[in-house]
Formats: sequence, structure tokens, C-alpha cells
Amino acid sequence: MSETLLSSRNLAFELYEVLDAEALTQRERFADHSRETFDAAIGTARSIAEKLFAPHNRKSDEHEPEYVEGAAQLIPEIKPAVDAFLDAGFLNATREFEVGGMQLPNLLSQACFAHFQSANAATTSYPFLTMGAANLIESFGSEEQKQRFLQPMIDGRFFGTMALTEPHAGSSLSDIRTRAEPAADGSYRLKGNKIFISGGDHPLSENIVHMVLAKLPDAPPGVKGISLFIVPKFLVNDDGSLGPRNDVVLAGLFHKMGWRGTTSTALNFGDNGQCVGYLVGQPHQGLSYMFQMMNEARIGVGMGAVMLGYAGYLYSLDYARQRPQGRQPDGKDPTSAQVAIVDHADVRRMLLTQKAYVEGAFDLGLYAARLFDDTQTLATEEERQTALELLDLLTPIVKSWPSEFCLKANELAIQILGGHGYTRDYPVEQYYRDNRLNPIHEGTHGIQSLDLLGRKVSMNGGAALKQLVKLIQDCCHRAGEHESLNALRQPLEQLLARLSAVTLALLGDLMSGKVNQGLANSALYLKVFGHLVIGWRWLEQAIRAEQGLATGSAADRDFYQGKLQAARYFLTWEVPSCHHELAILEARDDTCLSMQNSWF
Amino acid sequence: MSETLLSSRNLAFELYEVLDAEALTQRERFADHSRETFDAAIGTARSIAEKLFAPHNRKSDEHEPEYVEGAAQLIPEIKPAVDAFLDAGFLNATREFEVGGMQLPNLLSQACFAHFQSANAATTSYPFLTMGAANLIESFGSEEQKQRFLQPMIDGRFFGTMALTEPHAGSSLSDIRTRAEPAADGSYRLKGNKIFISGGDHPLSENIVHMVLAKLPDAPPGVKGISLFIVPKFLVNDDGSLGPRNDVVLAGLFHKMGWRGTTSTALNFGDNGQCVGYLVGQPHQGLSYMFQMMNEARIGVGMGAVMLGYAGYLYSLDYARQRPQGRQPDGKDPTSAQVAIVDHADVRRMLLTQKAYVEGAFDLGLYAARLFDDTQTLATEEERQTALELLDLLTPIVKSWPSEFCLKANELAIQILGGHGYTRDYPVEQYYRDNRLNPIHEGTHGIQSLDLLGRKVSMNGGAALKQLVKLIQDCCHRAGEHESLNALRQPLEQLLARLSAVTLALLGDLMSGKVNQGLANSALYLKVFGHLVIGWRWLEQAIRAEQGLATGSAADRDFYQGKLQAARYFLTWEVPSCHHELAILEARDDTCLSMQNSWF
Repeated sequence: MSETLLSSRNLAFELYEVLDAEALTQRERFADHSRETFDAAIGTARSIAEKLFAPHNRKSDEHEPEYVEGAAQLIPEIKPAVDAFLDAGFLNATREFEVGGMQLPNLLSQACFAHFQSANAATTSYPFLTMGAANLIESFGSEEQKQRFLQPMIDGRFFGTMALTEPHAGSSLSDIRTRAEPAADGSYRLKGNKIFISGGDHPLSENIVHMVLAKLPDAPPGVKGISLFIVPKFLVNDDGSLGPRNDVVLAGLFHKMGWRGTTSTALNFGDNGQCVGYLVGQPHQGLSYMFQMMNEARIGVGMGAVMLGYAGYLYSLDYARQRPQGRQPDGKDPTSAQVAIVDHADVRRMLLTQKAYVEGAFDLGLYAARLFDDTQTLATEEERQTALELLDLLTPIVKSWPSEFCLKANELAIQILGGHGYTRDYPVEQYYRDNRLNPIHEGTHGIQSLDLLGRKVSMNGGAALKQLVKLIQDCCHRAGEHESLNALRQPLEQLLARLSAVTLALLGDLMSGKVNQGLANSALYLKVFGHLVIGWRWLEQAIRAEQGLATGSAADRDFYQGKLQAARYFLTWEVPSCHHELAILEARDDTCLSMQNSWF
Repeated sequence: MSETLLSSRNLAFELYEVLDAEALTQRERFADHSRETFDAAIGTARSIAEKLFAPHNRKSDEHEPEYVEGAAQLIPEIKPAVDAFLDAGFLNATREFEVGGMQLPNLLSQACFAHFQSANAATTSYPFLTMGAANLIESFGSEEQKQRFLQPMIDGRFFGTMALTEPHAGSSLSDIRTRAEPAADGSYRLKGNKIFISGGDHPLSENIVHMVLAKLPDAPPGVKGISLFIVPKFLVNDDGSLGPRNDVVLAGLFHKMGWRGTTSTALNFGDNGQCVGYLVGQPHQGLSYMFQMMNEARIGVGMGAVMLGYAGYLYSLDYARQRPQGRQPDGKDPTSAQVAIVDHADVRRMLLTQKAYVEGAFDLGLYAARLFDDTQTLATEEERQTALELLDLLTPIVKSWPSEFCLKANELAIQILGGHGYTRDYPVEQYYRDNRLNPIHEGTHGIQSLDLLGRKVSMNGGAALKQLVKLIQDCCHRAGEHESLNALRQPLEQLLARLSAVTLALLGDLMSGKVNQGLANSALYLKVFGHLVIGWRWLEQAIRAEQGLATGSAADRDFYQGKLQAARYFLTWEVPSCHHELAILEARDDTCLSMQNSWF
């Protein structure tokens, strides 16, 4: 049977030929690991994902969570799947051995997790959200909070959520209204309403730990007045047993276009004035805590988008190889046998486009995960800081690029299946609906573009950008050693040169106070920057593919040829398209900015 | 309340300022009409669409047709809506007064129909399919067939379908296997299976008339051996009363991502050897008959895609004007009031893009409808033939461009609503799901691109293409009279020149036998050609807007300014993007063609 979640050969290429995962075992933290332990973890992930996650992906879509007597009910297949995930240790894949973790690199954890994301995006959300909440407490919580809330999360008894959005405050978190009043016992009483809280209620765990953004009475206005609180569904006694139900009420469920298996909830905090919360870290620092967790969360969202694209690509490829239809344009004899549609040039275009988008974004997601490992385990503080700056810069791309282009891949997968692809008898339409969430949550596309141009490229005097430029130049230099790659390298070099100049010009605008003008076309900037980054990652893959062709086994020739062709597609069909957006950016075109509300 | 289906002002602009609908009343066929009768028909359409079609659009999506004891059951709201449509005469809007029609121009019929398509794509399908089937019988059926089947369709008692696709034959109709054997009484006995037959069963009419493609025993192979048959659900007696049930069985329903209110059926013909059919016209001419009806059907599909885009645009515009969120980039004071999101530059970009796509495609659809009127009512056969050639050339664009770009508009509408747009509490996610069908049915995107480049541009020595080039040149010339339009005219002229050269080169390839190579990148050609056509239509609109600003009322200034800004967006942000695809076409790039199956 064809592989359905991802290509194992491609994953091995990424880990061991492109990203040199084995080098990580030289670091002290990962010294007990080896390629064998890495591959064993991946094998376990694939097996559980195939056997317990994939089979109920459609059922979860058809039977979304139901609101029954104040609680969300799920289909029964979700709990055994999540339990198997927990039992295999994936929730704590990166934690130390001594707390029961696998002490794996983040790179390997993401590689394992990718299988679950491909198999069933919705079910995977429950542990994903729990990981995020646990990481927040681990980084910023008190020892007492860690013992009371984090340890049961690590043990898989408690799950977690992130509760940010309110009905009137989504992208604009500075306007949240949830309030937290200090109580006599040192805890707080929260009051407010949150919406779109994924995993906000379910029967998968004994307790749910909500990480809630709220404002203290003395909070300064805006984002600098937001604090972070632990608000458990059930209070927890000193001995770790569950206490009474906290004053958090499931007000309702949202019904979404896709991603239906994940409960999306409206939660009311403190309707009866009894909602107990615990301040995490310092007052008014809540948003900065959240943002320090954002890189990991956004890599996760980006990888989620990649894996939906990947699943659709593999399905449509398999379909195209099986489905006979029509003949070549130059072979119209109606009595001749029909050809498989993979042989039609336009179908091949749609498959190659998917491959280029999906495998390009997959590489970037794993590259970012490895960079995250560098931020944790490089030898010196300076090296770790350098890695963190690059990761900060890349994060908007890691999150947004797959959200746009792997969604486009899903659109193409449907097209390849034609009328069948539009029915619910095939999985591709669900991937498309599921993936449409990704440009919205964890910071919309527009927010990512403002983050990139308005903050990331200029931070620390543009240090991260300089680092990235150097990496790309170095890649182009190495590509120059392969004559066959000249035609691929040149478009990237041209894009880099022109984008660098545009960046300087736009930053000049921003620094001279033309903020609205400079940021007006940030969406175009995001697209070009993203294509630069993905183009770079494809050129890296192409270099490894040339090396593989020269030194690898004959059995791998097709694989490497495919890599080179996808790199050629991306670098010669996609990268040059950006000159159009660059011209608009260079001209400081104000077509959209000058449009008036009354003119619509 | 804001308008929800389409902008009446924009429709009036199209009819009376751009397309000069009143001039049609000078033609004999439309002599009894006037702007007043046109507007009365439009008013009736809007009223019925708002009151009876729009209200059950969501319910239809949530309660799709059910298979109950061999029949498809629908929600009860559909029949009164369709009945009101029939009672108001829209099924026969273009037919002669003497057969009970309104004798309206096709332009006006499409303008009326657009309201229903915007309000409820699924319910609108039932009369749409009936119109197509009726037109086939009217054009190619015998007098006896017209009396027995067409008249009850005109009367609204019988509905119709088009039954082409089979499980193994979708795009490749030459491979259909349904057979028709002559019977002693001059009728035929059909045997075969059809899938994806929209409206193939429902309780809306006394009878359903299937227009079925099948092959006679002596049929030559391929498309030249396909014949067309009338196959009624119930046989019809000589006195017009219903006879026994024919041997057509509803084998099942398809469950789709969107467009759920329209039954999509699998039909078995002749499981018991008793399926009676009647040959329409001559043997083996079935596909050519179908194709002669294709222009109208494809205009209808294209307009359907436009109107889903239009509905989403208007909804997201209204939302953006109401929804406060965040502040301008240069106004970060968190104590200041939030602005409506329509004031954010990136939201404005998403709205302006939608406006440019939707109103550009709306104009083209109506232009094509008017051209259809020319094919029917221009004074001389030569003029009618000239109009038909242009319509033939434009049809792939009219069908495919909105299917791609108004779907993109729907994607942007969701994005503007953010998390809310992803829930089923708002209509935009349904528009997106509904619209995803349009690039697939009535000839996929790939088929349209082959039709355009492989057939339409070269037909009759390129006569239609020359005609189009002349129209665009003339438009640019008139635009040149407005200095303000220079910046809009020039990109179109550049695109026209370069595309003309590319077309000649590609046709040269095709004529010299390089068929596979010449057609390999036809999808890119389709995009560029479509942008040329929509760019031309926007320049025409811009000219009228300039005239309106000069001579129109002050109250219309905002409207005309909006037109100019959308034209500026399309001609300076979208049209120049095509040089990227043109470069690939010029280079005869074979990246996709040379990709090998084994390399994926």
C-alpha cells in the first residue's frame, strides 16, 4: 500500500541528509540518542497514527462534539487514540528522562508529531494544546503550580487550553475585558467570557487547566496590562486530588467549516463570582509569556498546515496513478486505451505544485524545529541567542506560508480527483476544509505580515535578517559548485538582492514616521519573504539531491530526480513571480491604502 | 439594510451605462420592452430571491437531500421557492410571448437569474438544469417531442437534467458505455449507469426529463458516436398524461462538500431492460448538440461562481464596516477607540480584491449574455455569426475565470471575518464550499484551458481572436482620451502585445505537430488570457466611470470613484502579474511536462 501520512523516504532525507539530525546526538542533552532511537520513535508514531488516529478522521468530521448537559461529548474513538499517544510518551517527547520524558530533540518530536497531524488534525489538537499549556507553566509557573498542575499534565491526567480570544477582542488582545480580582488567600477571582477556546471542554482527562489572559484592577491600559492565570476546571486539593468544580461554565460550542473533531468552546468565567485563578509569574507580563511560547505553537500550526497538504498530495498522487481518463493531446484514437491521469501534463503540474509546496514547507518546519533545539542546546549563550533571533524572524513564515500554500495544495488535490474530490466519499475535501483554519488562528495572515515587516526584520538592528541573508548567500555559493544548479540558484540570488533593497527602503519609511504607508502592503512583503525562504530551503534540498545522485544508491535515483524537479519548479516557476509584488512594494503603491470606505 | 444579493447600483451601471441594454429594445424581438419592463423583471427577481430563496440557503446545506425508498426527499422550503420562480415566468424569460414567455433579452434573463444564484445556488440549480434540457429539445427535438416533453417543461410541470458522466468517463466523454438499442416502435432501450446527475431525482415536478448521452449499436468509436436521448422518469401518454414509471432507478445520492441542497444522483438506466428513450435529432450527433448548448450553460456556471463571490463580498464588506478591532499602526494608544476593520489597509486590500474580481467577472458574464443576444437578434446572418465566434472564444473564460477568482474572493471573505468566518454561524464558509464545485463541473479548469488554446483561439483562422484584439485595442484607444486612465491602459496594452505574440508562437508549435509541448502549460495561458479579458472589461468600466464623474450626479461620485479604484487595482496589481506566466510560456518551459511519474 502507498504511504498515506508522509513519505518515509522524504522524512529520512530531511533528518539525515538535509538537517543532520545525528549531529544532535553529539550534544550532551541528546547523548543517549542515536539514529536508531530516533527511528524507533518515528516508527511508533507512524504506527499509532495509522492505527488509531487516521481511522476516525472522517467520523470525527461527521459527528462533531455535542453539547449535552453543560459538557462536550466526543465520539468514543478519540480517547483511546489520545491515550495511546500519551502512553507512548509523545506528550513529553522533549522532556528530561528524569521526569518521564524521552529527552528527544524538538526536531524529532516534530517529526513524530507530523504523523498525527497528517492522520487526524482534530484529535491531535488535544495533546497539542496540552503541550502548550504545560510549557507555559513549566517556564513561568511557581514550584507549587508546577507540582499541582504541571505534573498531572505531564502524567496525562490533566489537559490544557489557551484562553485568549473574547467576543470583541481577537487580533486586538489589548482590548480584552476579562478581569481578575485578588482574593484574601492570594488567589484571584476571574470574571469574563472567552470564545474559540479549542479543547475548552471534553471528557478526555480528569481535569482541564485553562491558561487565561485577564487584567488586574491596577493594570495599565493595553497589552502591557495583561496577566496570565491558571484556571482549572476542577480545583485541586493540596494532596493532588480533585476538589470542587470551579466557576467555569461551558456556554456553548462553535460549529466550524472543518476541524470539527476539536471542540471549539465559549467559556464563561465567574458567572457566580467564584472563579478561582492563580497568577502565573509577574503581574502584567502575561502577553510576553504567551509570546515566548509562540514560536513553538506557531511551528506547530505551520506543521499542521503542511501535514494536511501532505496528506492531500499523497492521496491525489495515488489517485492520479490509478485513474484512467482520456488520452494524450497528440493521441486522439478513441479505440486506444485511456492513460492514467498522472500522464496528463496539467495533472502533473498540479502534482508537482503540491510536491513543491508541501515538501518545501515540510523542510522549513523541520528546519525551524532544529533551530529551536539550537536555542536550547548550543554551547554558549551567544550562540543560543543567535539561533533564537533567526527563529524569531522565521516564525511568521513558518506559520503563515504553509497556511496559504498548503491550503492551495489541498485545492489542487480536490481538482485532481474532479467530481469525486468534491464528494465526502474521499478525504481531500476534508483536508481543504480543515486547512482553511490555519491562516486564521494563532495570529491571522495579516497579523503575521505586520509582525514580520513591522518588528522582526528590524529587531536588534536587523541582526536576524543579516543572519538569514548570509545563510542564503552561503547556500547559493555552495549551489554554485554544481553547474546543474545554476538555473536554480540565479532566480534566488535575484530575489534576495531585490528584496534586501526593498526591505531597507520600507524600514526607512517606518523609521521616518510613515508607518501606515510602510506597512500598507505588508501582505505582499510576507508573500515575497516566504518565497525567498522556501526557495532557499529548496536550493538546500537540491544540493543534497545532487550529492545523493553522485554518491547514493541507484534505487534512490528517482527520489533525487523528483527532488531536483520540484526544486526546479519552485525556483523557476514560483520564485520569479515575486518580482511582480516587489515592483508594487518599490513603488510604494497606495491603491489599497487610498481606497475609501464610502467607495466600496 | 445593506443589499445582500448584489449591488443594484452596480447592476444598473452594467445594464444602462456599460452594456446599453436599452439599445436592445430597438430590435424587433424586444420592441415591446423598455427600461421600465426590464427593471420590473429585476425587481420581481430580487423580491422572490430575497423572500423565498435566501432564507433556506443554510437550512438546505444542513439538511441535504435524503434517499428514502428509492426517491430523493428535499426540505419543504425548496418547492415554494421554485414554484414562485416558475409562476413569475423566469423559466421562460427569454421565450416568445406566444408560448407564455417574457421575450426578454438573455442579458436581462441573466441579470434576473443572478439574484437567485446569489441567494441560493443549490435551489437555483433545479430550474437552471430544466432550462438547459428544455433548450436542447427546443433546438434539436422533433415536433412530437416538443409537444410531449418540452411544453410540460415550459409549463413547469416537468423538470429536466443533463446526464453525461459515467463512473469511468468524466472529462473523457468519448468513453461512455451507456448503450441504446432500437426497439420495434421506433424508440430505444437504454442500458447504463450515470453519476453526478444533478437534479436526477426530487419531488418538485410531476416528471423528470433526462437528456442522456448514449451510444447506438452502430456507433463509430469516440465522440463521433455519441447520440442524445430523451429518457423520462415517467412515460408520457399521447394525451399528455403520465404513463408508467420508466426503467430509471435512483441508485444513490452523492454527498458533497458544498452545494448540498442540489441532489447529485447516481442513476441506473435499464436494469430491467425496459428503459425507454427517444433519439433527439440525428444519430451520433449528440455531443455536438450538447456543445451547441454549452455556451449558455457555461455562462450560467460562470455567473453562478460570480454570484457566490458577490454574496461573500457584500457580506464581508458589511461585517468590516461594523466590526471594531484594533487601531491604525501609527495610533497605538490603547485607550483610544478601536477602528472598524474596514479601516485597516490589509482588510481594504482584501475587500478591493474581492470587488475587482467579482465586479469584473460580473461585467464579463453580462457582456457574454448580451453577446448571446447578438447571436440571436442581430440583423444579418454574418453579424450573428461574428458574434457567435466571439462568444465561442470567450466562453472558456466566462466559465473558468470566475470559478477560480471568485472562489479566491470567497476565501478572502472568510479571512475578513476571522474566526467567525470559519464557523457555520456566518454564510461565508458556505459560499466558499459551494463555489469549490465550479472549477470542476461543466468542463474542468484543465478542459477549459485545452478548449481555449487547442481550439478556440485558432478557429476559423483566428477570426474570433482578431475580433477580440480589435475590441481591446479600440477600448484602449478610447481610454486614451482620458489622461487619468493612461496608467490603467498601458499595462493592458503591454499584456495584449505580449500575449498576441505568445499565442502565435504556441499555435505555430501546435501546427508543426508539437501538440503535447504546445499544450503543456495551457493552464498558464488560460490565466493570462482571462486576465486580459477581465482587464479589458475593467478598462471599459473605468471609461464609463470617468464619463459618470464628468456628467453624472454628485450622489454617484463615490460609486464611480470605487469603480476607478477597483479598475486601478485590477489593471495595475493583477494584470502585470501575467508577465511571469508569459515568460514561462515564451520559454516553452517543460518543467511539468518532463516530470516523470516515478519521480513523485
